[in-house]
Amino acid sequence: MPIYNAPLKDMDFILNDVFNADAFWQGNPQLAHVDMTTANAILEEMAKFSKNVILDLNRNADEEGAQFENGQVTTPAGFKDAFTQYAQGGWIGLGADEAWGGQNMPKMLTVLTDEMIFATNPAFMLYPLLSVGAGMALSYAASEQQKKTYLPKIYSGEWAGTMCLTEPHAGTDLGLIKTKAEPNSDGSYNITGTKIFITGGEHDLAENIIHLALAKTPNAPAGSRGISLFIVPKYLVNADGSLGERNTVAAGSIEHKMGIKGSATCVMNFDAAQGYMVGQENQGLAAMFIMMNYERLSMGIQGIGASEFAYQNAAQYATDRLQGRSATGVKSPNKVADSILVHGDVRRMLLNGRANNEASRAFAVYVAQQLDITKFSEDATAVKKANDRVALLTPVAKAYLTDTAFNAVLEAQMCFGGHGYIREWGMEQCVRDLRIAQIYEGTNGVQAQDLIGRKVIKNQGAVIFDYIAEIRDFAESLDDSFAIKAATLNACNEVEQVTQFILAQANVKADFANAVAVDYLNAVGLLSFSYMFARISLAASSKTESFYQHKLVLAEFFAVKILPALNRHIQNIESGSDIVMQLPEDYFTAQA
Amino acid sequence: MPIYNAPLKDMDFILNDVFNADAFWQGNPQLAHVDMTTANAILEEMAKFSKNVILDLNRNADEEGAQFENGQVTTPAGFKDAFTQYAQGGWIGLGADEAWGGQNMPKMLTVLTDEMIFATNPAFMLYPLLSVGAGMALSYAASEQQKKTYLPKIYSGEWAGTMCLTEPHAGTDLGLIKTKAEPNSDGSYNITGTKIFITGGEHDLAENIIHLALAKTPNAPAGSRGISLFIVPKYLVNADGSLGERNTVAAGSIEHKMGIKGSATCVMNFDAAQGYMVGQENQGLAAMFIMMNYERLSMGIQGIGASEFAYQNAAQYATDRLQGRSATGVKSPNKVADSILVHGDVRRMLLNGRANNEASRAFAVYVAQQLDITKFSEDATAVKKANDRVALLTPVAKAYLTDTAFNAVLEAQMCFGGHGYIREWGMEQCVRDLRIAQIYEGTNGVQAQDLIGRKVIKNQGAVIFDYIAEIRDFAESLDDSFAIKAATLNACNEVEQVTQFILAQANVKADFANAVAVDYLNAVGLLSFSYMFARISLAASSKTESFYQHKLVLAEFFAVKILPALNRHIQNIESGSDIVMQLPEDYFTAQA
Repeated sequence: MPIYNAPLKDMDFILNDVFNADAFWQGNPQLAHVDMTTANAILEEMAKFSKNVILDLNRNADEEGAQFENGQVTTPAGFKDAFTQYAQGGWIGLGADEAWGGQNMPKMLTVLTDEMIFATNPAFMLYPLLSVGAGMALSYAASEQQKKTYLPKIYSGEWAGTMCLTEPHAGTDLGLIKTKAEPNSDGSYNITGTKIFITGGEHDLAENIIHLALAKTPNAPAGSRGISLFIVPKYLVNADGSLGERNTVAAGSIEHKMGIKGSATCVMNFDAAQGYMVGQENQGLAAMFIMMNYERLSMGIQGIGASEFAYQNAAQYATDRLQGRSATGVKSPNKVADSILVHGDVRRMLLNGRANNEASRAFAVYVAQQLDITKFSEDATAVKKANDRVALLTPVAKAYLTDTAFNAVLEAQMCFGGHGYIREWGMEQCVRDLRIAQIYEGTNGVQAQDLIGRKVIKNQGAVIFDYIAEIRDFAESLDDSFAIKAATLNACNEVEQVTQFILAQANVKADFANAVAVDYLNAVGLLSFSYMFARISLAASSKTESFYQHKLVLAEFFAVKILPALNRHIQNIESGSDIVMQLPEDYFTAQA
Repeated sequence: MPIYNAPLKDMDFILNDVFNADAFWQGNPQLAHVDMTTANAILEEMAKFSKNVILDLNRNADEEGAQFENGQVTTPAGFKDAFTQYAQGGWIGLGADEAWGGQNMPKMLTVLTDEMIFATNPAFMLYPLLSVGAGMALSYAASEQQKKTYLPKIYSGEWAGTMCLTEPHAGTDLGLIKTKAEPNSDGSYNITGTKIFITGGEHDLAENIIHLALAKTPNAPAGSRGISLFIVPKYLVNADGSLGERNTVAAGSIEHKMGIKGSATCVMNFDAAQGYMVGQENQGLAAMFIMMNYERLSMGIQGIGASEFAYQNAAQYATDRLQGRSATGVKSPNKVADSILVHGDVRRMLLNGRANNEASRAFAVYVAQQLDITKFSEDATAVKKANDRVALLTPVAKAYLTDTAFNAVLEAQMCFGGHGYIREWGMEQCVRDLRIAQIYEGTNGVQAQDLIGRKVIKNQGAVIFDYIAEIRDFAESLDDSFAIKAATLNACNEVEQVTQFILAQANVKADFANAVAVDYLNAVGLLSFSYMFARISLAASSKTESFYQHKLVLAEFFAVKILPALNRHIQNIESGSDIVMQLPEDYFTAQA
């Protein structure tokens, strides 16, 4: 039976010691209701709930899966009760406005509570996640009346939300969508079309499901400039907020997937379903991207949760598994063999995982703090800067945190040897469940295109250079005795130079950026982790307890063993796109 | 529905152009019955069988799985018929001695036929694979009477074989096994114990199953020096070769696994089962390693098959999928969008896969040629050298070919976007099925220990230096215009120097080698692929058709985009083991 204990000590360390959260919160009038005492109480509560309620449902959720019959979805045993508890605990609205029933907690805190549910049951987590995302899009773009109608019910868990974008022929390229919105005389629209890969499109957890769907009005401009956003409730809502008729939107089937089997991934058929426009006509993508950016950071959190969960179990297995003897002499003479922790290769894998957990978590809190500034700060300059920073780092948080987590989870599985491949140990499910995080909400390749194109080249590197300057300033403040100092400063120089190179190449070669985008994303990711370990090191260095001193060793491990991967990515960018683009298209499918 | 077309043209190119197989075969009296015409006829036959019979069973094998009830295993629909066809086609004994009903074909050929079955149905392939492995161990160590009794039935497919090593508490460390062999007065033994992870331990494909089991006789020396090998048939065999009583060995259950679900992975209970010693007492591991080395190369072949299969499907999907437009201008103005092949990032993933397929396949044939020399050559010096080379490269073939294949398969899955996560497209099954190849027959971490310890440090690098000298000689013969020439020569120098470094460190630091072993295996793997692309380049350079000229481009892609990863592994070796070994054991499980 897999174990999980929320890393509360590390969470407290990151909030309190690394990011000085109390000072940040107290300095923001809108966040003055939060302090570390409150934060730790909330984290402890979620640690119990995730361990005692959510984890137990995880294995069965995979075995049983979401079931589809006659248009209805039955979620795995225990999900409904757990969802009710989760909703009643106020977790859905934890970060939402108090005006709509939320608790107005900072993102810095909710990324940590989200991590615990993602660690213990990612398939479960997707249901409330989509509700929160829908709530965000409505908060941004909906009318006051719409907000009043939908938000309190979503945050209370009575209703749930979805995000209906993808169609069979239109995924990354949403400009190709065909779903139509025909206006009715009462101001509503009839929505007709087919959407696929709709997480939580149908289920039994809530009495109503509020679909947010992209569609095209008659005579809308072609491509992505002609897309509008609509609310399409499963049950129509009467003027008094009570449920009315069943709307003509329904699940046609659910997908059979590699993992997250407890999450219902639906084909949704809209058959002249009644819908209500959100915001302005043809401005649907902007609102949807509010939701999507939220989801993208959340996918990074899914990575952290999985990596932490896998690490804890692998470390325990490695401690318990006796096999072979240490090369430096017998360590456990009273046992038939030493624990496999005596082997450097096993430690290498575990340290990779541990470094990933701690750097990823710090990075998520860092990005969350930027989000909190955009939402709560009253300083317009700070808000502008934080907005740019969030835009820059969202694709990194989504793609880099899921790529590194996937590698960490694979290494954790490997620590189990053959048992890692057997279902009852839980590691193989963790691998399967996490794999989707690299794919959905825009594949990690698409994230890399977003980073290099919209977030770097489009502003001629202004935002990334500002980020690098912040990192350099911080690293320079460190004592020379930290290995992470020189490593981080070197990484700053490397990423800065290669960014200049990219800007120059992009001017003369249109297909350059696409071909090197993934290497660039990895370079920015490694630099970001280096920055996090620099901050962790400074925060830990003033304390003598081994908990803190070990963080300095882990930071050095990162500098010595992980960061050097940066060179390869820089080299791959410098060697350019010519060799990648050279072969004719029919080369790829010609029979070999 | 996934596609597969055996890469016959590339196989012919590798055998004929790269390795000049005809001259090799004709130069060996024992192989003079083989030529390229025969070889291509055999390959074409297997191409049809794998495509028309085996591939169709693959998806259902995953969905249905092997079923266990009342001690019996039912294999998935179609397996029994396909196994019969496979056996009747002579495929089980393709590489076996004619004296026992085999066809005496070289390993250079059987690695290619094996690849096709691994590509189309890895779970199926494991059944005959274990039979062949058991046959090899018996050929090496059994008495003439035992060979006569068992080998013809195994090669005809009437009986099957297994390999019973692992016990719940003894995997990598076989010295810990507890299974006992008590001698009977008639010269047989009573075998008692529990074995786990036994592939094909029970099934309905053959009328008898011949288990090769490791056990300890009374008073055997402790550890791995006290292990003997036994034949334990499911049904006892009468003097006339007919089947007698059911022996007291039986499957207790089968494992529920991440993949290869059509393969029955059994817990086998030996309850005073009658067994017959193979070879000398306490010499069981040597015979078992004959079998295991065969299986280990086969796992590399599993990697090639999966990588080729995934590549073909991803290339087709990328060609068909229209999404977005080329950055250099619209490529398909009559279509709603361009194919995703216009995007450099998609090409990057496909070229990684293609490079892996072609280098891996060449490397497998290279190692197979060395195996053929050990078996068929009459030149004792050549045999000795080839034996050393096989010992050196077996862990590389097992681990490096499965690691790179797993990455290639993940990238192929990524080309499908969300569809890659859905079962019906076949990519996610390919990922799950391949994952085991990195784990079983000794994890890839254990392979790396074998390489650096027994195969390099133990002989003070003599064998690897000889291998590097061969590569360097070859690369120097290339024209300077090939990018792969300088790249390969540089890799020779790098690996040579780091090997010297390892030899020096291993003398002074007992835990050094274990901690850097995986990086070293990767370095040797990259050097080996570079060698293969050097050989491919020379063979292709004299021909003008695009099929050959494109191989030169692929070799350059490897030199420019993949080989630079070598630097990171060299750096990780040079930065040593101290930072890995520094933290106390309880650090890993202390609550964070």
